[in-house]
Amino acid sequence: MNILVTNDDGVGAPGLLALAQAMQSLGNIKILAPDRNWSGSGHVKTLDRPLRIKEVKLTDGYPAWASDGAPSDCVALALLGFFEEKIDLVVSGINPMPNLGHDVTYSGTVTAAMEALIWGVPGIAFSLGSVENGLAVSDYQPAASVAQEIVAAAIQHSLPAGTLLNVNVPMLPTDQIKGFRTTRLGLRVYRDRLDRRVDPRGRPYYWIGGDTPTGIPEEGTDIGALSEGFVSITPLQLDLTAYNAIQGIGKWQLTVNNMVTIP
Amino acid sequence: MNILVTNDDGVGAPGLLALAQAMQSLGNIKILAPDRNWSGSGHVKTLDRPLRIKEVKLTDGYPAWASDGAPSDCVALALLGFFEEKIDLVVSGINPMPNLGHDVTYSGTVTAAMEALIWGVPGIAFSLGSVENGLAVSDYQPAASVAQEIVAAAIQHSLPAGTLLNVNVPMLPTDQIKGFRTTRLGLRVYRDRLDRRVDPRGRPYYWIGGDTPTGIPEEGTDIGALSEGFVSITPLQLDLTAYNAIQGIGKWQLTVNNMVTIP
Repeated sequence: MNILVTNDDGVGAPGLLALAQAMQSLGNIKILAPDRNWSGSGHVKTLDRPLRIKEVKLTDGYPAWASDGAPSDCVALALLGFFEEKIDLVVSGINPMPNLGHDVTYSGTVTAAMEALIWGVPGIAFSLGSVENGLAVSDYQPAASVAQEIVAAAIQHSLPAGTLLNVNVPMLPTDQIKGFRTTRLGLRVYRDRLDRRVDPRGRPYYWIGGDTPTGIPEEGTDIGALSEGFVSITPLQLDLTAYNAIQGIGKWQLTVNNMVTIP
Repeated sequence: MNILVTNDDGVGAPGLLALAQAMQSLGNIKILAPDRNWSGSGHVKTLDRPLRIKEVKLTDGYPAWASDGAPSDCVALALLGFFEEKIDLVVSGINPMPNLGHDVTYSGTVTAAMEALIWGVPGIAFSLGSVENGLAVSDYQPAASVAQEIVAAAIQHSLPAGTLLNVNVPMLPTDQIKGFRTTRLGLRVYRDRLDRRVDPRGRPYYWIGGDTPTGIPEEGTDIGALSEGFVSITPLQLDLTAYNAIQGIGKWQLTVNNMVTIP
């Protein structure tokens, strides 16, 4: 079992170190992660420039590789043959903030696992935090233990085809974590505001500012589970089709060359 | 009706000009697009640096704004209040290559429409091309006419809540387009390969190379419709939950503090 460990915070992040150490009892670990922070980067495929990869060491001395590509690029590089060994599983994280609801489309941590799925390899993303995030993470050990437990189970049971896991661990000491919930994505409430400022030369610039997002802690959702102190495991798939909208839009009677829509 | 026009190829791209011109009979047009090409950029939220916005003109003299952010940043800037007017609809494109199947998670064109949806505004993404893409686009007029027809219908009928549209137009003269199909996402076949090279100083670098993706032209899918010469309209939503996997994963009997999973 060859396990690729990556993240979106950069190869030097403490969350990656904790995850890599937790995986070492489960397989042969390969580490290839970005050389800088790519938080909020989304699902990137870098085709317009070549990528560099340099060998580095984690602070525990373990060998790793750092690329100037995005998290999803790191996964593509690894799965397309950068390592001699065939990668069997991709784990990503541990992100220092939760990835809940619509966050998953922005999240470099989650899109790394999506990229694995596109190449037919199971992927699991791990994030840590509270629904109202923004607190500094001081201890990744509880989340690393949870990750070890979940990855061991994923290896034992196999993930359903076409499925990745998005795991959020509450920022609590292990003995205060209440257990696990298998969840659906909940509804994030974003509170971004446009912050217009003027630079010393009189020219305007804009921050996407505002408050950290909250969420609706509905029963059965990732946000609900995390807010109650449970580990949230959300199985995700990449078919975004809104199936229940197909028929209605098919009735729009669009015309081109006098041909109408056939739903 | 205030319509924001954006894209992922940059404000100077001919596909944006064609789309903006096609929208002018449907509402008050606002143009805010990236100042460079962001193809393959995914769903980005730029929080770690401020964004600049400068006024430019399209080649037809129409006023526009260019930002150094990603396509989804441009949408956020517009919807968070860069313009005085409230934006009612976001259209993105026309992309010179199709966005089909799993492409939608990578696509700057589509993630611009996703960002609109997150802020509660309808979004429609337009792309042009053949399933085996790579041909240069010489004429955006057939796709611009199709875009006008679809946007007019979307304004008339309203999009279902929580739904964006991903439209792919075959690269054909208008009189050869066979009509419209409302579709689901099909299966893209990626053919990326890792291309290792050595620079003049003897150091390795890596291209994500290989052939352009193909797809499985299954009946009912975007890929199938496009390959037969139909305009494909795929309604998309952002709930990636793999609902049918929740119960099975809930049976994994994970333990923390001797608490087991509750599905």
